[in-house]
Amino acid sequence: MSNTAYVGLLGRGAVGDAFHDLLADRADAVEEATGRRPEISGVLTSKKGSFDEILAASDVIVELIGGTDPARDYVTRALRSGRDVVTANKQLIAQHGDELAEAAREGGAELRFEAAVAGAIPVIRVVKESLGTIEIEKVFGIVNGTTNYILTEMARTGASYDSALKRAQELGYAEADPTDDVNGADAAAKMAILARLAFGSPVTLEHVEYEGIEEISSDDLSYAKELGLSLKLLGVAERRGEGALSIRVFPCFLYPGHPLAPVEGAFNAVMVEAPAIREITMSGPGAGGIETATAVLGDVVSVLAGGSPLGEASGKVKIAKDISSAFYLHLEVEDRPGVLAKVAEILGENEVSVRSVVQHGLGADARLVMVMHEVEEKRFKAALSKLGKLKFMRSAPRSIRVIEEEFK
Amino acid sequence: MSNTAYVGLLGRGAVGDAFHDLLADRADAVEEATGRRPEISGVLTSKKGSFDEILAASDVIVELIGGTDPARDYVTRALRSGRDVVTANKQLIAQHGDELAEAAREGGAELRFEAAVAGAIPVIRVVKESLGTIEIEKVFGIVNGTTNYILTEMARTGASYDSALKRAQELGYAEADPTDDVNGADAAAKMAILARLAFGSPVTLEHVEYEGIEEISSDDLSYAKELGLSLKLLGVAERRGEGALSIRVFPCFLYPGHPLAPVEGAFNAVMVEAPAIREITMSGPGAGGIETATAVLGDVVSVLAGGSPLGEASGKVKIAKDISSAFYLHLEVEDRPGVLAKVAEILGENEVSVRSVVQHGLGADARLVMVMHEVEEKRFKAALSKLGKLKFMRSAPRSIRVIEEEFK
Repeated sequence: MSNTAYVGLLGRGAVGDAFHDLLADRADAVEEATGRRPEISGVLTSKKGSFDEILAASDVIVELIGGTDPARDYVTRALRSGRDVVTANKQLIAQHGDELAEAAREGGAELRFEAAVAGAIPVIRVVKESLGTIEIEKVFGIVNGTTNYILTEMARTGASYDSALKRAQELGYAEADPTDDVNGADAAAKMAILARLAFGSPVTLEHVEYEGIEEISSDDLSYAKELGLSLKLLGVAERRGEGALSIRVFPCFLYPGHPLAPVEGAFNAVMVEAPAIREITMSGPGAGGIETATAVLGDVVSVLAGGSPLGEASGKVKIAKDISSAFYLHLEVEDRPGVLAKVAEILGENEVSVRSVVQHGLGADARLVMVMHEVEEKRFKAALSKLGKLKFMRSAPRSIRVIEEEFK
Repeated sequence: MSNTAYVGLLGRGAVGDAFHDLLADRADAVEEATGRRPEISGVLTSKKGSFDEILAASDVIVELIGGTDPARDYVTRALRSGRDVVTANKQLIAQHGDELAEAAREGGAELRFEAAVAGAIPVIRVVKESLGTIEIEKVFGIVNGTTNYILTEMARTGASYDSALKRAQELGYAEADPTDDVNGADAAAKMAILARLAFGSPVTLEHVEYEGIEEISSDDLSYAKELGLSLKLLGVAERRGEGALSIRVFPCFLYPGHPLAPVEGAFNAVMVEAPAIREITMSGPGAGGIETATAVLGDVVSVLAGGSPLGEASGKVKIAKDISSAFYLHLEVEDRPGVLAKVAEILGENEVSVRSVVQHGLGADARLVMVMHEVEEKRFKAALSKLGKLKFMRSAPRSIRVIEEEFK
């Protein structure tokens, strides 16, 4: 006993095309798994199709338009009218998650968005379903393939940021306008979604503090190599004391032995830490058309099969203020007696403790590359501000966070 | 509107205890996620409790007895009577999967077994649900934490197999009777389960060819180190041509850069390859009491939330015969002219091609450690048999498979 499931497709870009083909190709398998045979009821593009007609003819809406407008309106209306919705739209979920959850409740519909985070790696399903009722402490990882490709290229070839970005664009790993990838906004949206699910708290993009990789230079990578470090753009969502959360995106050096250190190129990787599981790591290719379409198909199968734990977000979001991090610090100074002593004095006054130093001659100047132990960020920033004002400083000090912990 | 879900618990060993505590601790979260509050309706141990009474009082049965008898009878009866069942019992699923699937169909009940494979890593859910309708080519990995701990210890400390096993027993990573772990039977059962789900084919333990690590010596590890290789007990399930499958467990050297090479100690890791996702890797701690209990809880939440794609296994299993592998070969030979030439001749006659050789003096004898390129296994075995009969051979030739491919 089988019946048809009508799937309305909004958007027909690279992912939309890949999903359209994949659904046709796997229709038998979907029918076998769910008892319902999927059929496209209509396709909406910017040029043709009527949303209202497609909505009326569909059981499930797949939203692959991207952006928040008009996707927000379409998804909200679909959910309110009782249609299950599958989307790959990270900005939509990160910015309007609460509103969409409310619309789903009203309509008794289900909203799924595996494809919004980490391409083919099913991190949403794992966090929401497998680990949905345990206390997750921390979710972190490399959630933007474009920036990981650029950083890998810079480290591997010594290329500048600009030429690595250009190469990423030529290979299709970066878009013509790469702003949202390289400034960290894309990763921030994904971390908001992961934090929302992992902590059951109504986190949105606003709660995420983020930095990108535009300021990273090939010098940072070559000096870091001497210290055995690799550079990643990390997203970190974690519980801090007293119900507070911290959700941040920042470029960061990792020590060798860290499970994320070997993740290279356009790959993504996410780690989940909880007392009940210690840590699990999931890695795979970041979002390409077919990988994203596969994640969308997995969600379509789940809504057709029906029922799944919802794990609503509730309560107020409290963001932690007193974050501590380890730092790498790069100084160009005049090469004369007393300079290192003065630098050390300022660091010491602010309780910043040095883990390692490499000094390089540079004509009449010297470069100091230092790695600090973990310290409250506000203390480090106070020291940095004082260092920047010293007369013997040849350029602005550069600092990047470092993860000290190694693989357990 | 909430109602109680009565959970009957069979077995009260380490995992049973951990699950009992975890369920009580997370009852609020389960109720929030599923709308049903879980309550233990009864506990069956070898000393007390009546299965029939517990069955009558339960909505869900959690089977943590282990072994096939009496678990097989209990689980079959529970499913036939319409109770959803969650089990961590790999031997039960690997040996009697078809019978249990049939019982579940009869009773309209659901059978879940995430905890049977890879501890807290939700590989079953990912293969069955996220990737349930795509064409998976290969599932492989390190699925036995005991053997990975032993091999890691041998490589790290130069310890013999016996003393590394003893240490694993002292630390609780190996049982008093470690037979099923070290001979590969445990990993074989897990690979049968994964193959069944990944390929939708009724694979059972009988279809899996397996070898263990009992014959691995510290010499193998120290010579391999010179070649930069690390040793793992791998489970590999893959499609071969013409609908045939190959499901095997064997000790194997990995080149550095392989994603499984850095997986150390009691950790597990599973990789899934498919055109639609390229490859994803999942890693985490192998089965401990709390990790296994967490996987069981995830399944309980899913059955309470209701509905999930089933992905039945059907058709006949066809096992491929013409497997090719790369090999490491360790020979102790008399150190005189013409020996290497004779060895090379026999390899050449069987179309076995050498990738690298390391030779060590050993008094009047010499050790040859060679790595071969991929070759049909029957050819390599024919060469091995000839080599074993040579007069100048000082001990039986030793061979171990090698994975050549590196991380893409």
